[in-house]
Amino acid sequence: MPKEIPPDSVGIVKPEVAYFDEPIKLDCGRTLPKYHITYETYGTLNADKSNALLICHALSGDHHAAGYHHMEDRKPGWWNNYIGPGKPIDTNRFFVISSHNIGGCRGSTGPNTMNPDTKKPYGPNFPIVTVRDWVQTQHKLGQYLGIEKWAGVIGGSLGGMQALQWSIDYPDDLRHCIVIAAAPKLTAQNIAFNEVARQAILRDPEFHDGHFYEKGVIPHRGLMLARMLGHITYLSDVGMRKKFGRELKEGKLNYGFDEAEFQIESYLRYQGRSFAERSGFDANTYLLMTKVLDYFDPANKHDHNLGEALAHVTADFFVLSFTSDWRFSPARSEEIVRALTSQKKNVSYMAIRANDGHDAFLIPNPVYRQVFDAYMQRIKV
Amino acid sequence: MPKEIPPDSVGIVKPEVAYFDEPIKLDCGRTLPKYHITYETYGTLNADKSNALLICHALSGDHHAAGYHHMEDRKPGWWNNYIGPGKPIDTNRFFVISSHNIGGCRGSTGPNTMNPDTKKPYGPNFPIVTVRDWVQTQHKLGQYLGIEKWAGVIGGSLGGMQALQWSIDYPDDLRHCIVIAAAPKLTAQNIAFNEVARQAILRDPEFHDGHFYEKGVIPHRGLMLARMLGHITYLSDVGMRKKFGRELKEGKLNYGFDEAEFQIESYLRYQGRSFAERSGFDANTYLLMTKVLDYFDPANKHDHNLGEALAHVTADFFVLSFTSDWRFSPARSEEIVRALTSQKKNVSYMAIRANDGHDAFLIPNPVYRQVFDAYMQRIKV
Repeated sequence: MPKEIPPDSVGIVKPEVAYFDEPIKLDCGRTLPKYHITYETYGTLNADKSNALLICHALSGDHHAAGYHHMEDRKPGWWNNYIGPGKPIDTNRFFVISSHNIGGCRGSTGPNTMNPDTKKPYGPNFPIVTVRDWVQTQHKLGQYLGIEKWAGVIGGSLGGMQALQWSIDYPDDLRHCIVIAAAPKLTAQNIAFNEVARQAILRDPEFHDGHFYEKGVIPHRGLMLARMLGHITYLSDVGMRKKFGRELKEGKLNYGFDEAEFQIESYLRYQGRSFAERSGFDANTYLLMTKVLDYFDPANKHDHNLGEALAHVTADFFVLSFTSDWRFSPARSEEIVRALTSQKKNVSYMAIRANDGHDAFLIPNPVYRQVFDAYMQRIKV
Repeated sequence: MPKEIPPDSVGIVKPEVAYFDEPIKLDCGRTLPKYHITYETYGTLNADKSNALLICHALSGDHHAAGYHHMEDRKPGWWNNYIGPGKPIDTNRFFVISSHNIGGCRGSTGPNTMNPDTKKPYGPNFPIVTVRDWVQTQHKLGQYLGIEKWAGVIGGSLGGMQALQWSIDYPDDLRHCIVIAAAPKLTAQNIAFNEVARQAILRDPEFHDGHFYEKGVIPHRGLMLARMLGHITYLSDVGMRKKFGRELKEGKLNYGFDEAEFQIESYLRYQGRSFAERSGFDANTYLLMTKVLDYFDPANKHDHNLGEALAHVTADFFVLSFTSDWRFSPARSEEIVRALTSQKKNVSYMAIRANDGHDAFLIPNPVYRQVFDAYMQRIKV
């Protein structure tokens, strides 16, 4: 809760909603008859519409990337550290659009919105979406807002995957593609973690095959476990060691199971419970997001050759990774960089030294900020 | 199921049980009035009793380390690859004793055995045990079997922690200490994984606060999730990639949640279900084992100085790690090696190149076998 809005903040922002009545064909073969997308904008579109940036969010993110909704907000938007006046995503220069993906649960069409055919929430019947589907709907949103060519499309983690897909699907519609802490596809280990999270939710007796809305319950056990596990993969071994070590919560061992004994247990339980019980995150959406990640593999249609998948991109690329990120390690970003250079594309790359693991892309870090800022300054508007 | 017993196998073996009526004081402050330990032996004790080796098992292991119980057995004991005539733990030379730890669920006193005070299974009231408690009971077993000085104490993973503790608690009672794929204490990340596994079991509605026996159910969801997660940490990223990659089970995406789509999902579900539904592993034991791991920290009483904890050891040490093991990485083994060398103790160390992650200590590997064999040959009997 800010006492006053800091000068480098975009301030109080208000989500808007765009409605689309034209049906959209999805990768899975199914069609959404209509859909809506919730988004926020920061900054001002210039006269020749050359300063628009699209922000793509990650697994549990949404359109609220910067600023505050109310003066009572406990926290600003999820990428507030990097979006605002004078920040790398400088709202004095750029018109920033941050949209919430379909399948989400924070205001765009998804499992918790009404299925027009049944007049009930889609629930588990919401189609499985893909990064390509998201990019298609984001492209529609751009048209709706009058953006013909984006100055840049930007994202971290699953958001970076969307930026990468944009450069492939709409090669002429973005000038810069900024891919942070991402990977060109998941590894078996990444999929394995997703599968454990899914099973935790699917097997929670309160999931009710996804029809928990009607029962007035939520599968809080499954969501809690999924989130706890997620947090382990978002942090790094070294970061956890520095932050929690083997510190005991009450200074001594309890020889029991009820109380969290080590600080790390206490942290994970808090994060898990908070996500499951207070965030309102929809379990069907959580399941969908993990599938979006598993399925992402733009090289698949090109005989597993990522270079060929990127043969027709025209954007300049900026790729960033973080040294302690073991979810999507620097080696995974470097696969993207190598594929781009094999096609003689323009790409700048840096692995930022950081202890924060995958979460580093969200966290203040002077080198990250400086490097990010330097690249963004190069974008002509 | 062997058609015939291979010549390098210990053959058909039969567990035995040792009963102890003297109460034992545990680290947690509680006392077990009596207890029994199930164990197996392979090979023959020599006349001067100088050829006895103690095998310590890991989280889900037991006394059945080598050979077969019946000709119909599907699989031999868990360390059969390395125990037998002509193998590194050569039963032509050594008398091998493999005991099952208290708190376990395969024949030693534990949550699923009768509490003499209540005449019901201990269940969740079984005291939390520690590596030191185990070493104490193993020492009693040695006395019972007439072993005054072990040629060696050997273990992998949590088993290696027991070997290390032996060298500290009974420095004059073993000549060699063989610590494989272990660590001198868990990291915050290790504890975090254990905590997710515990929460999966504790929050399973069929756990019933540990009193599931009386209800005629088992917390199979929790056990399945715990085991799936465990398997991710036992394998390595590179090993999973080589074994499963992103191969699809049915050659195509299903766009659904019911069927396992990627091979790795199918593997994990099978392993999880098999453990939860067919292995008979006790959920209270699983919880205990994770606490044993979390609590292990022999340096704690020595101002976190592992060298000081090892100041009085007299055994020769053999420490092994595996390059792709990220549960207990080579760096963790090297902490032990450095602490030993700081005290001018005899220690041989090697990091074995292997893709199998933490599981490598169980898996056939020519270099591992050769190095292990060379060390064991040096042990005089």
